[in-house]
Amino acid sequence: MRSLWFENDSLMIIDQTLLPGEFEIVKLKSCDEVAHAIKTLMVRGAPAIGVAAAYGLYLGIKDSDEMDIDEKLNRSYELLRSTRPTAVNLFWALERTKNAAIKARPDGADAAKAALLNEANEMADEDVETNRKIGEYGNALVKDGFNILTHCNAGALATVDYGTAVGVIRAAHESGKMVHVYADETRPLLQGARLTAWELKRDGIPVTLITDNMAGFLMKQGRIDMVVVGADRIARNGDTANKIGTYSVAVLAAKNNVPFYVAAPLSTIDMNLKNGSEIPIEERNHEEVTTIRGQRIAPEGIEVYNPAFDVTEAELIKGIITEKGIAYPPYGESLQKFFNS
Amino acid sequence: MRSLWFENDSLMIIDQTLLPGEFEIVKLKSCDEVAHAIKTLMVRGAPAIGVAAAYGLYLGIKDSDEMDIDEKLNRSYELLRSTRPTAVNLFWALERTKNAAIKARPDGADAAKAALLNEANEMADEDVETNRKIGEYGNALVKDGFNILTHCNAGALATVDYGTAVGVIRAAHESGKMVHVYADETRPLLQGARLTAWELKRDGIPVTLITDNMAGFLMKQGRIDMVVVGADRIARNGDTANKIGTYSVAVLAAKNNVPFYVAAPLSTIDMNLKNGSEIPIEERNHEEVTTIRGQRIAPEGIEVYNPAFDVTEAELIKGIITEKGIAYPPYGESLQKFFNS
Repeated sequence: MRSLWFENDSLMIIDQTLLPGEFEIVKLKSCDEVAHAIKTLMVRGAPAIGVAAAYGLYLGIKDSDEMDIDEKLNRSYELLRSTRPTAVNLFWALERTKNAAIKARPDGADAAKAALLNEANEMADEDVETNRKIGEYGNALVKDGFNILTHCNAGALATVDYGTAVGVIRAAHESGKMVHVYADETRPLLQGARLTAWELKRDGIPVTLITDNMAGFLMKQGRIDMVVVGADRIARNGDTANKIGTYSVAVLAAKNNVPFYVAAPLSTIDMNLKNGSEIPIEERNHEEVTTIRGQRIAPEGIEVYNPAFDVTEAELIKGIITEKGIAYPPYGESLQKFFNS
Repeated sequence: MRSLWFENDSLMIIDQTLLPGEFEIVKLKSCDEVAHAIKTLMVRGAPAIGVAAAYGLYLGIKDSDEMDIDEKLNRSYELLRSTRPTAVNLFWALERTKNAAIKARPDGADAAKAALLNEANEMADEDVETNRKIGEYGNALVKDGFNILTHCNAGALATVDYGTAVGVIRAAHESGKMVHVYADETRPLLQGARLTAWELKRDGIPVTLITDNMAGFLMKQGRIDMVVVGADRIARNGDTANKIGTYSVAVLAAKNNVPFYVAAPLSTIDMNLKNGSEIPIEERNHEEVTTIRGQRIAPEGIEVYNPAFDVTEAELIKGIITEKGIAYPPYGESLQKFFNS
């Protein structure tokens, strides 16, 4: 089962805000519903957001006719673009599917709709294929018996299936290596505790849950052999935006000589950005910090700072694992080569 | 109002597990009740644990007579010693009050009881005085307009009053400097969100709450001028055990050239230990990680690692602020001088 799929003119997703307590599949029937699901993190993870938005764009035009399809395409495109600012896969997927529709548009509204849906379906299939390749390349870095730390959820739930960072772990596990995962819980929204721990446990991959502030102490004790995380946007110099806390993990890994890898598809790489300082960082709602699963944990009226992502500079990253292979520094050159190949 | 005090033959404490939602004062009438309160973190913070244990020892012998006082003293002493392993103030306070009782013992059971209670009262008063001195010395390090990061709660609640790390902040604030605090929430038990945020807000000191994994990103952005934390045990070379996550903050501070200070009374320094590797690290209950305020946040049956403390090596610590002044590296010499003076 994939984490999202299209059937009966609807996008089906697992509501990730309810896991692990409840496993609920939600049917999204309109572009507005998809936009809302992305905004509220019912669907999250850069690659999953991209594919969900692609289907959302289709839902935005599926009931249109020759008269209003162009306006609906533009309106849906803008709505979906405005849902979240950091993950570049969102913009990449919307661009790609919108262009598919525009290219077929001279053949009529129905042709444009069919082309858009076809493109979205292809992207969903490609995503799984891409993650398997990332897993294969990444597996070469994993030794039997490794303890691997990951942050947030870059797993099957963050993609259409298989995962990026978790894809590397999954490939190592499937190839018969003994691997054990330490999953950072990843405050504020606990994607590590709620999603990564859940999917690894379900798939029989040994996993131990820790709070974010324990990762450094584990590294200091020599209990982590490798760190692998996903990404929301990578600038062309290799600077990487990912879930808040990733930068801290990378600094702690460097201090303790633990190799730190990023696993992401080329669609996460934004060659338009010179470096990480140009990546927009989303700041979210204060309640994500002051309450947990509805329980108040801080005094009323307290000030809060809640950036959803941070930027890890390229020099802290040992390699970027993509579907074209592993890029090594200097990333400006190695990433460009993958785009040219 | 102090965070703990003795009246009507009872130890009065604020139940720190209920803050900030509820402010409840609990009356502890026996040594067993004090031991339970320490174990369950109703009272926590190295200096506060020490003073609470001292009163607990008194409660353990207060109803004894010439026949059973020695046995009760020993039994209470052992019970209280077994409550928590890391904070050395516990052992220091028990040793000191037990010795006071033993010294007065030749004059009879009542004299021993009175001597013990007197010693506990003196320790409580000294603790406040000590913290004010720590605050005064530490204030010299704080510049007007500083943004100060602290981890966990080393505030009035962690002591009899005023606080150690928060004492430094409080002294700076009282002296008219503009200071703003970033409080790490401090998972798993959220002492930063629940206690530090609460006491700073109550006292009108500007404070912003963040999750633990945001501290590094703030430092990278140049938004932190200084870090000050408390301690649970300091080895004679300066290696410092403190709440889990402290090590990570120290590494991130070093990476970003932010000065990192420890504030603690001499009673937290264990000159018997050569270095931090000899400090016992308490591991606590898995439910602290898998549930928050009673809400399950992780899959059932998940493995968990939950060390309550970590050790920050001396080389990451710019200075240790004590009631005798600020010790600088090499700590082996500077700390010894304070004990000799």
